[in-house]
Amino acid sequence: MSLLVVGSVALDTIDTPLGRAENALGGSAVYVAVAGSYLVSPVRIVGVVGGDFPSEAIEFLRGMSIDLEGLEIVRDGKTFRWGGKYHHDLNVRDTLYTDLNVFEHFDPKIPPAYRKSDYVCLGNIDPVLQQRVLQQIDSPKLVVCDTMNFWIERKYQDLLNTLRVIDVLIINDEEARGIARETNVLKAARCILDMGPRAVVVKKGEHGALLVTKTMVFTTPGYPLEEVHDPTGAGDAFAGGFVGYLAKTEDLSDENLKLAVVYGSVLASFCIEKFSLAGLEGLTEGQLSARAKEFQRLSRFDGV
Amino acid sequence: MSLLVVGSVALDTIDTPLGRAENALGGSAVYVAVAGSYLVSPVRIVGVVGGDFPSEAIEFLRGMSIDLEGLEIVRDGKTFRWGGKYHHDLNVRDTLYTDLNVFEHFDPKIPPAYRKSDYVCLGNIDPVLQQRVLQQIDSPKLVVCDTMNFWIERKYQDLLNTLRVIDVLIINDEEARGIARETNVLKAARCILDMGPRAVVVKKGEHGALLVTKTMVFTTPGYPLEEVHDPTGAGDAFAGGFVGYLAKTEDLSDENLKLAVVYGSVLASFCIEKFSLAGLEGLTEGQLSARAKEFQRLSRFDGV
Repeated sequence: MSLLVVGSVALDTIDTPLGRAENALGGSAVYVAVAGSYLVSPVRIVGVVGGDFPSEAIEFLRGMSIDLEGLEIVRDGKTFRWGGKYHHDLNVRDTLYTDLNVFEHFDPKIPPAYRKSDYVCLGNIDPVLQQRVLQQIDSPKLVVCDTMNFWIERKYQDLLNTLRVIDVLIINDEEARGIARETNVLKAARCILDMGPRAVVVKKGEHGALLVTKTMVFTTPGYPLEEVHDPTGAGDAFAGGFVGYLAKTEDLSDENLKLAVVYGSVLASFCIEKFSLAGLEGLTEGQLSARAKEFQRLSRFDGV
Repeated sequence: MSLLVVGSVALDTIDTPLGRAENALGGSAVYVAVAGSYLVSPVRIVGVVGGDFPSEAIEFLRGMSIDLEGLEIVRDGKTFRWGGKYHHDLNVRDTLYTDLNVFEHFDPKIPPAYRKSDYVCLGNIDPVLQQRVLQQIDSPKLVVCDTMNFWIERKYQDLLNTLRVIDVLIINDEEARGIARETNVLKAARCILDMGPRAVVVKKGEHGALLVTKTMVFTTPGYPLEEVHDPTGAGDAFAGGFVGYLAKTEDLSDENLKLAVVYGSVLASFCIEKFSLAGLEGLTEGQLSARAKEFQRLSRFDGV
């Protein structure tokens, strides 16, 4: 099975009370791809960077067996740079700057070798571009999609068109409310199902995730960690674990979607334990399944 | 088994986008007792009200088989009144007024018939009073205790003394952080275990609850409801369901504490579905166990 990831590739400067990273490899496509690479191969990235993109970053991604044929390098441009500062309460962060640079005019071009990708994860880019990506791919088995308030507010009709052609929407609770124009998250998720997707996953950060299909509601808790170093990329690591698990198992039943949410939560929990991408480095299959079992132990009860 | 509940008995005026109640029966002891009454009998209240306390409220509580011998009535005083207004997002509320009235000088007197109470739930009163209550009771099997920021800030040493003589502390995440002076909730809960209690339950509102003992961590999700009418009293309904289940089953093992958290969550979920106390009226054992099973279905997964 192959997984195609389309989205941002960035250099992040992250400031937390526990440390600081400057121009570290980041971007949603990177977190999705790295998390997914533990579960499926090949993982392909379509994105754009500038001539300043460090060769170490290229080597790191190649080392994770990620196919970079679709990574466009604009020699005379600069890579997307994001700077964020986390408060003592790591749930609160300020964006210090967002320099889109070459990402501002990102126009995803799918290499011919990528057209037969089985699983597709669309990052939170312009919904018009999301549709254009799908037009370039031959009937994928599953399309997972993210979005953000920026597009909900500015491109609502285009977003509705995207929702008609995707399978799973992965968003946070605020985005769910914004798309459905409904305060109650469960009602909002059900309303989004009527717009097209067969499943909606609502990410709730440290409070876990909610999965809603026409026939099922499922929740996973946040993994109670004593050491949280950097929440950057956790939502994307979740998406990578989710779609990676589905690509690995090739089973889109309700029961298996639950396990995909668990694996998404597993990858997100590893992601936040360390700084920047470090939490997603050097994991083993054994570690993933051990933590999935811990998630089970954490919420399982018998005797009712 | 007997359950003794000590705390506030109030008349609430509640304003939500979905409706308004004026001078409705409320107060933490009332919500705890009514929720607990579905699981254990007798339930006894120790509290204080004024001469204005309506006879319908007395009749309602008697109708729930709640023993009111410990409810002191100050004929020439006024009952504690609380007014709150909820926003469209029901997680946000403004307290409009808190008229403590007779509750300001509440000095809990335990009637002789209550001294042999097996299970005790101490509402969020002055920790000095909490200790005084316990001195009047003959070796209870389990003491569950609540507190609030007001006491954490003003009576920290007294609160520490209370923590040494109780079994389970039920608080929200902000209170856990405040008591432990630690941002990470799991670390905070473990720190509180070192202060005395054998279990700490952290209530997270719509995000469920976290149970921590020396040997176990357990989470329940919030119950995803399409209709939330009034969150007033949900935390107290949780405490009533929790301690009521333990009193009913007389089993204080880790595994049974999990089920107590589930029953707490069940009672809280019924509580918020309707206005004021209405969600806790007329429930059946069948409804409680059916919803406990729904909680199980909601978070259960196999195959990892």
